Amino acid sequence: MADSIQDEGFRIETDALGSMQVANDKLWGCQTQRSLQNFDINRPRDLMPPTLIKAFGILKGAAAAVNVKHGALDSRLGEVIQQAAAEVASLGLIDHFPLVIWQTGSGTQTNMNTNEVISNRANQILGHPLGKKYPVHPNDHVNKSGSSNDGTATAMHIAAVLDIVNVLLPSLVELTETMWQRSKDFEDIIKVGRTHLQDAVPLSLGQEFSGFATQLEYGDKRVRLSLEALRELAMGGTATGTGLNTYAKFAEDFCAEVSKMTGQQFITAPNKMEAISANDALVFASGALNTLACSLFKIAQDIRFEGSGPRSGLGELLLPENEPGSSFMPGKVNPTQCESMTMICAKVIGNHTAITLGGLSGQFQLNAFKPLIISDFLHSVRLLGDGMRSFRKNLLVGLQADRKRIKQLLDQSLMLVTCLQPHIGYDMASQLAHHAHKRDLTLKEAALELGALSAEDFDQYVRPELMISPANQPS
Amino acid sequence: MADSIQDEGFRIETDALGSMQVANDKLWGCQTQRSLQNFDINRPRDLMPPTLIKAFGILKGAAAAVNVKHGALDSRLGEVIQQAAAEVASLGLIDHFPLVIWQTGSGTQTNMNTNEVISNRANQILGHPLGKKYPVHPNDHVNKSGSSNDGTATAMHIAAVLDIVNVLLPSLVELTETMWQRSKDFEDIIKVGRTHLQDAVPLSLGQEFSGFATQLEYGDKRVRLSLEALRELAMGGTATGTGLNTYAKFAEDFCAEVSKMTGQQFITAPNKMEAISANDALVFASGALNTLACSLFKIAQDIRFEGSGPRSGLGELLLPENEPGSSFMPGKVNPTQCESMTMICAKVIGNHTAITLGGLSGQFQLNAFKPLIISDFLHSVRLLGDGMRSFRKNLLVGLQADRKRIKQLLDQSLMLVTCLQPHIGYDMASQLAHHAHKRDLTLKEAALELGALSAEDFDQYVRPELMISPANQPS
Amino acid sequence: MADSIQDEGFRIETDALGSMQVANDKLWGCQTQRSLQNFDINRPRDLMPPTLIKAFGILKGAAAAVNVKHGALDSRLGEVIQQAAAEVASLGLIDHFPLVIWQTGSGTQTNMNTNEVISNRANQILGHPLGKKYPVHPNDHVNKSGSSNDGTATAMHIAAVLDIVNVLLPSLVELTETMWQRSKDFEDIIKVGRTHLQDAVPLSLGQEFSGFATQLEYGDKRVRLSLEALRELAMGGTATGTGLNTYAKFAEDFCAEVSKMTGQQFITAPNKMEAISANDALVFASGALNTLACSLFKIAQDIRFEGSGPRSGLGELLLPENEPGSSFMPGKVNPTQCESMTMICAKVIGNHTAITLGGLSGQFQLNAFKPLIISDFLHSVRLLGDGMRSFRKNLLVGLQADRKRIKQLLDQSLMLVTCLQPHIGYDMASQLAHHAHKRDLTLKEAALELGALSAEDFDQYVRPELMISPANQPS
Amino acid sequence: MADSIQDEGFRIETDALGSMQVANDKLWGCQTQRSLQNFDINRPRDLMPPTLIKAFGILKGAAAAVNVKHGALDSRLGEVIQQAAAEVASLGLIDHFPLVIWQTGSGTQTNMNTNEVISNRANQILGHPLGKKYPVHPNDHVNKSGSSNDGTATAMHIAAVLDIVNVLLPSLVELTETMWQRSKDFEDIIKVGRTHLQDAVPLSLGQEFSGFATQLEYGDKRVRLSLEALRELAMGGTATGTGLNTYAKFAEDFCAEVSKMTGQQFITAPNKMEAISANDALVFASGALNTLACSLFKIAQDIRFEGSGPRSGLGELLLPENEPGSSFMPGKVNPTQCESMTMICAKVIGNHTAITLGGLSGQFQLNAFKPLIISDFLHSVRLLGDGMRSFRKNLLVGLQADRKRIKQLLDQSLMLVTCLQPHIGYDMASQLAHHAHKRDLTLKEAALELGALSAEDFDQYVRPELMISPANQPS
Repeated sequence: MADSIQDEGFRIETDALGSMQVANDKLWGCQTQRSLQNFDINRPRDLMPPTLIKAFGILKGAAAAVNVKHGALDSRLGEVIQQAAAEVASLGLIDHFPLVIWQTGSGTQTNMNTNEVISNRANQILGHPLGKKYPVHPNDHVNKSGSSNDGTATAMHIAAVLDIVNVLLPSLVELTETMWQRSKDFEDIIKVGRTHLQDAVPLSLGQEFSGFATQLEYGDKRVRLSLEALRELAMGGTATGTGLNTYAKFAEDFCAEVSKMTGQQFITAPNKMEAISANDALVFASGALNTLACSLFKIAQDIRFEGSGPRSGLGELLLPENEPGSSFMPGKVNPTQCESMTMICAKVIGNHTAITLGGLSGQFQLNAFKPLIISDFLHSVRLLGDGMRSFRKNLLVGLQADRKRIKQLLDQSLMLVTCLQPHIGYDMASQLAHHAHKRDLTLKEAALELGALSAEDFDQYVRPELMISPANQPS
Repeated sequence: MADSIQDEGFRIETDALGSMQVANDKLWGCQTQRSLQNFDINRPRDLMPPTLIKAFGILKGAAAAVNVKHGALDSRLGEVIQQAAAEVASLGLIDHFPLVIWQTGSGTQTNMNTNEVISNRANQILGHPLGKKYPVHPNDHVNKSGSSNDGTATAMHIAAVLDIVNVLLPSLVELTETMWQRSKDFEDIIKVGRTHLQDAVPLSLGQEFSGFATQLEYGDKRVRLSLEALRELAMGGTATGTGLNTYAKFAEDFCAEVSKMTGQQFITAPNKMEAISANDALVFASGALNTLACSLFKIAQDIRFEGSGPRSGLGELLLPENEPGSSFMPGKVNPTQCESMTMICAKVIGNHTAITLGGLSGQFQLNAFKPLIISDFLHSVRLLGDGMRSFRKNLLVGLQADRKRIKQLLDQSLMLVTCLQPHIGYDMASQLAHHAHKRDLTLKEAALELGALSAEDFDQYVRPELMISPANQPS
Repeated sequence: MADSIQDEGFRIETDALGSMQVANDKLWGCQTQRSLQNFDINRPRDLMPPTLIKAFGILKGAAAAVNVKHGALDSRLGEVIQQAAAEVASLGLIDHFPLVIWQTGSGTQTNMNTNEVISNRANQILGHPLGKKYPVHPNDHVNKSGSSNDGTATAMHIAAVLDIVNVLLPSLVELTETMWQRSKDFEDIIKVGRTHLQDAVPLSLGQEFSGFATQLEYGDKRVRLSLEALRELAMGGTATGTGLNTYAKFAEDFCAEVSKMTGQQFITAPNKMEAISANDALVFASGALNTLACSLFKIAQDIRFEGSGPRSGLGELLLPENEPGSSFMPGKVNPTQCESMTMICAKVIGNHTAITLGGLSGQFQLNAFKPLIISDFLHSVRLLGDGMRSFRKNLLVGLQADRKRIKQLLDQSLMLVTCLQPHIGYDMASQLAHHAHKRDLTLKEAALELGALSAEDFDQYVRPELMISPANQPS
Repeated sequence: MADSIQDEGFRIETDALGSMQVANDKLWGCQTQRSLQNFDINRPRDLMPPTLIKAFGILKGAAAAVNVKHGALDSRLGEVIQQAAAEVASLGLIDHFPLVIWQTGSGTQTNMNTNEVISNRANQILGHPLGKKYPVHPNDHVNKSGSSNDGTATAMHIAAVLDIVNVLLPSLVELTETMWQRSKDFEDIIKVGRTHLQDAVPLSLGQEFSGFATQLEYGDKRVRLSLEALRELAMGGTATGTGLNTYAKFAEDFCAEVSKMTGQQFITAPNKMEAISANDALVFASGALNTLACSLFKIAQDIRFEGSGPRSGLGELLLPENEPGSSFMPGKVNPTQCESMTMICAKVIGNHTAITLGGLSGQFQLNAFKPLIISDFLHSVRLLGDGMRSFRKNLLVGLQADRKRIKQLLDQSLMLVTCLQPHIGYDMASQLAHHAHKRDLTLKEAALELGALSAEDFDQYVRPELMISPANQPS
């Protein structure tokens, strides 16, 4: 019968509940096949994120290495498991991971998917047929010293650290650097400030951009603060955090091995109950992403408003013309990078709500919202990383200031009156500004009309270039 | 030179900003190619949702039909546009829509992607080369009488209606019916009620499930209430809602055509400014999905708790054993469909946050968070539709009550004391329950010990089957 | 000993768990006193909302009336209960409701607070001492035919309907009417449109405001749609929805009585399990408020941007000067009503998250997040009601258009080129706009330089007043 | 005329826009009175939080001290300002702060309320009449060297730090300590674990509580991490962050003064543009509260489920009986502290959404959602602080384990089979568990029936006390 199945391109795979047919060109086993059938939900768009699969590959390789080292696993089996696990970790076998996020909340089915693929692949390497679980067994060997509970929790942290370090932070660092550069580029351009959207006292465009750069710098710091707890791994806790069926040294050695494999430091979680039953570290890290999203939303929003126009907007910034802006209005150019960025920020904030809801929903010894939490987290990391790179390259680098327009707006500003307050008092200064506004005068004209101060004094006091920093002495 | 490019597999496509190389096997044009380059963000996972592409295909076909009818478009061009648009609408050309959600906030790039694919495909059908915009021009002909602004808003509503009607509602209706059926199946099983998680007065398991069924029934009603506003289309408003470059009758005829093509009723939005500058109808509809998610979360949560065990949980329900539950604990069976469902609900709620944030962020004549809003909305619709189908098929249909366990819990319940309140007063009844609890007695034993009432009266009054409905008369 | 306590101003109140001292000038009893002690959380800011207390008063009066009618309650006791309940409903005894939101999740403590205040007050009216529960007993008489579970659920719906009808809708209707009026006031003012914040084809200021008015009109409709389910009352379900210890006719007659007392239609919930175990109707209604918040955020945002300046902003609208805007910049006037409104919207959206989380957290026969849900819901209703009234009165009524500025911006707009597309094609029109932009020319100058069309044709085609509606015929 | 107004109990106060009547027994001035009139929104429930008023008092006193030190303010005026400011800081004048949150988004009106109260009070102390702004002027003297923009941002951070340090952290530290104590109390109680709500391998109750304690400990750490950025103060930036009208040393000296006054370290924000235009530090800190809310939700949820019963629940924990649980079911006791806590968590999470929305909405040089952000933030801090104190005192301290029930559940658990996996393999172990489950056997009976291993081996391997930690050696 096996032969006839071969002919049809299927083999039989088995598990505790019975057997399933699996296509011969697939390395997965019975439990993966069941999940495929039981969770036919938004396939194939919502597959488990690749970085999580990579992390599972790293995990299985590291566990095998440690098990061999301590004599818990035959070294010949251990080596081939490590070889197959490395293929998973390199994403070379990604087509054999067909499961969606919407499965069991422990990620057991993806853990078993990994166990099955590695055992089948290992057996294949050793010249044995697929589906026989021999000589490498998915549970007894590949899953050795681990459970889905500590395994998925561990893979989540590894994946989160890898994508933060490889995708998010480089992009954030680069954007921050460019923002500081642009702040420097713009440091001599004095412009009207705006508070409540209304004209306010001046600042330099460089100062404005220094605010953006500082927001990003702090955002970077916040992400790094939240990164620390992600370096703690649950592995060694097995199912409920007790470490049943593991042994002294396993947990620590496992982390050392993963650290070696990834080049990132990982340590064993001091309390495995917390590490499995809660995913607070990811909720907190998502809070850091949420804050970064707020910063980026604000920055993108400001830039698109200051670039609004070309003739009926604020018009202080000139955005690169990357594409025609309208299918209908010829010649239109739009702040599309800002729009993409603000949509990304809204998405990250929405993901944060979902992650928070997942995070509070742990019950007893397990948080069973793990696939949701990690997929939304990695999605936020990726979106921010890619989005910031795009924003920097396609917008920030080419951004220009319209110096003529900026000067024109500054010159007519009424809020320059503020520097007169120490000289003529708040009440008279206020009256002066109102007078100029109502009569459509310049401040100086109004000052002279009201006899508030002499033309000489006016010219001496009202100098925007002196208004963008504290005085040396109180006036 | 065109030849040499042919040799290299590329052709030149042009737009207002210049030209781009496009692979010869792709039907898109210059603006799509620019977007590919300018928005390299989480590709290819975050492509625009297929139903939105389908809706754009319907839109372009309908617009062409109306334009031909009114003499605004040459009928030969109109026919071939309709033919190419039908191919888009059938998703036959989906590989030619490579753009991600994270693009311009008006969806202009996907609108232009559609215009470009249809014009290239139409010209191809007519035997003309790609990239020449001749005889069919993407803007002048395919986009005729439309703008990205009214177009994307329109495609969003069409897509939302189609997926609600085709994906969500059938699944919801079926789940509701099955829930009512299970309520009937369980109507004679009286069980302990639980409020505050604590033992409470009894009800039948059928009554409990009738509550679930009612939640779903109301959820269905809420989705349908929110559906009405989605039937209003912005088309005819062009860029800012004024209808510039359209003509009397276009908007109404367009809706009639779309209604005919889809079998769903659509009407022209009475106020096109609202229809383009806001996406409130989708925010509200997302609120209906958000409410349905709350209902489903509650139902799934209750079922998994009542099915908890097998020996240390509530154990009143027996869930189908769909798969082994643990990689580590042999023989474990878990409420995986409930976990998948609750994760889906958390995601829908997170999407609702993102949609809300997108919804409030419209500015002046355009809401420029459109791709985010529609992709998250369609995601929620799909997840709920698929999730409910899976939940029904893989859990609800096969759910069994453990009658023995249920009876055992009921018999020992102290809250049956409540039916004595009208006879012995709240204070004595309360004392009786405490006495039984403290001394580990049955209620009857406690009643007799305290002399609260006679054994005969006890047996007459304390009958669970009389406790699950109002009395005929006040007692 | 009782005497000495009298001397100290306290009396003894009792319940099933023992006794507590209560100040003699307070009408509450033992269970209220326990809650005061056990839940000392953000007192006194977070007291239960007054409208909920009012609704409990209505509920207790209505229940007594029905119980008397059916002989379930002595008519003399019933009358005095109704009298005391009316005092609660009029908020005349509000100082006797000292409990905070953060109590038991069923609202039992506030239900008992009501029972205790009414029984004490009733006994006081009858000339009996406080604290004796005689002749009127809080549980046996005031709570007759009810439980906290159906009672709180019922009071929540009554309170929600009353505040929506009395606080929210009048304010919304008035704002909508004023918005339509302003749309009419501004109908002849043609202005530059803005999409993506960039200059776009023109529309009238009246059209813009008609979009706002339509948003509000739809918001009103959505709130009313969600109101219907709030008219269903749980009363008659008692603890788990079965109606134990009630009788045929109680539920229907109760609703008729409440309808009579409030002037609002209420009906008995068809399924009492749903009505107690879920609060979906409030989650959905909160979704309607959430959508309204999105609309108001957008409107307030647009108005403050169009009112930005006075010299460096868009400057198209002139906002009333209600107060000095700055402690530091003399003469500054800020869009404070818009700021208040957008903060309110953010709060309503935050409340919606909390309500959603409460809504999904029902367990078995009870949703035990009731105080949170109703207090946040009523907060949102009140904020929107008060906020819209303030916005209308202090901003919208006095808003003026700066016609001179609007015309100036319109005249120089490049997007008027769009009306040329049907005449010269998208590509030439696009070239023309770019040429004008780059060379800082008017459109007409550019058109003549490029030879795109004649001056006569230009003047004939480019007429903003013809651009704000569809043409009679296709061009 | 002033006299007649005196007679009527009002005086005239003036500002740049004119004059207002203010009641003679109130210390506020004209701008406060305008705000009262212009923002009649949910008064009086939504007043500005007292800790923010306290912080404004501290700020004004510190600014006066520094201004005097540097000769920017007459020392006699400075002293009396400090005296009046101290009264504000002690909350002794709280009745003179009548404004609601829903005002100008910069908090200018509350800043001016403070300026007005202090100047009036200072003038009163000096024997001058109210309302004359002489000799102490609200803007020229009290507001000296500051603006509402840097002032409100500064007061927000001071208030946040004070309430975190004084209200939240002590409560959190105490709860954590008690949780560790309870973990120790329960360390010898071995119980069935639960994952997916289903029976799992055992752990000790002490281990379970160590997970809770670790969550809290990490929560504490996260709050402290987020506290650092709150110690940066905006003061010295004045309106747009440039420091106009201040002087070298002001900012640093101000922070030193506030540090001295509060006993908490504060430093001047390195970039004042960031500090005023964004409130990211509060968004991030709210993320820490959001994470803590997730932890507390989980803990409270677990405890109430493990305490469910008394006869039809899990029944492992015995919760203190703090109050009668039901108005209807005599003798019922409910997990009310858990309900209060989970509602609080939901509220904190809702506040986080509002804070996030406020946080992303800064525009140009000002975030104008400041009152919303700080009031929601302080609300979350207070709720968590009070809620944890209540939870500890009224629940955790008195919590008891039902050892008999716990042992009974453990003894019958099938998941003890897991420790056999290393000995008999996953597949046989799985078969064994199924066999026992299906035939309702003990594990041992099933093992013997299946011949899986000998009775001696079974007894040697299956020992729960050996299952709650890793083995010394791999098996």
